Amino acid sequence: MAEEALFQLLHSEIIQYVNSVESGESENGRCVSKLEGMGFRVGQGLIESRHISDCRFTKDTPRFKDELDFMKFICKDFWTSVFKKQIDNLRTNHQGIYVLQDNKFRLLSQLSSGKQYLEHAPKFLAFTCGLVRGALSNLGVKSIVTVEVSVMPACKFQVMIQKM
Amino acid sequence: MAEEALFQLLHSEIIQYVNSVESGESENGRCVSKLEGMGFRVGQGLIESRHISDCRFTKDTPRFKDELDFMKFICKDFWTSVFKKQIDNLRTNHQGIYVLQDNKFRLLSQLSSGKQYLEHAPKFLAFTCGLVRGALSNLGVKSIVTVEVSVMPACKFQVMIQKM
Repeated sequence: MAEEALFQLLHSEIIQYVNSVESGESENGRCVSKLEGMGFRVGQGLIESRHISDCRFTKDTPRFKDELDFMKFICKDFWTSVFKKQIDNLRTNHQGIYVLQDNKFRLLSQLSSGKQYLEHAPKFLAFTCGLVRGALSNLGVKSIVTVEVSVMPACKFQVMIQKM
Repeated sequence: MAEEALFQLLHSEIIQYVNSVESGESENGRCVSKLEGMGFRVGQGLIESRHISDCRFTKDTPRFKDELDFMKFICKDFWTSVFKKQIDNLRTNHQGIYVLQDNKFRLLSQLSSGKQYLEHAPKFLAFTCGLVRGALSNLGVKSIVTVEVSVMPACKFQVMIQKM
């Protein structure tokens, strides 16, 4: 039963708690940044735990020839292991910007799809932005990750690779 | 790679964050009780998500004849789905008290085994106490769950069933 439900339930608990704690003037910003930070460390840890069990996944191996290879790894292996599905669409401008589209993002499917819930979406996406940034960081790739929701539960993560 | 690592990493992040927030006079107590509450809700949610996908696991079905059956479910199915192993030993006084012993509890294995770390153990166990209490609660069984560590990473959860 549990893996997926466990992660989703824990993720909701974290959001709720962080949100309750970081309430104040700039509440939303602080909540989002805390969640992003947690995601970052978990993303790093996931790559580390994988690295320990499987040496193929390090930056020094020929598995990753270039930037695009890193992104394919995130879209396929990494996404599947966390969200049980692949990213649906990957696009790039070939200048270090990658757009990863998930048409049915697991962590948004808990939120109702009404427009009035759109404002809560950033809280449900911040952890995952950090997750991607942390994973890439532990693979030796510095990046900035943002996200945009149009129609829930679809969303697009934008990854800007900093010069490698 | 990820399921287990994901849960463990997220669990650590929560502990760290809750601990940093709930610092004050009675810090440890509040931190532990927050974590227990989160575990409770996640435990409830896990049973619910299972119930939806698999109707065998409700209290109304013949699967659970008596208290002991509930506890066996927690020790086997439930523990395996969360911790990837079964409880190593289950004992009862046949008067509503059950002792569940895990000889290598996953969430303690991150802590070093020195005696000086024993004081941190409650924080690493509170979520799981809540998890068990929440799962039982959603199966219709009220309980009080406590825990005791002797030599890490072994620990014993004590479940006191309130009259059904």
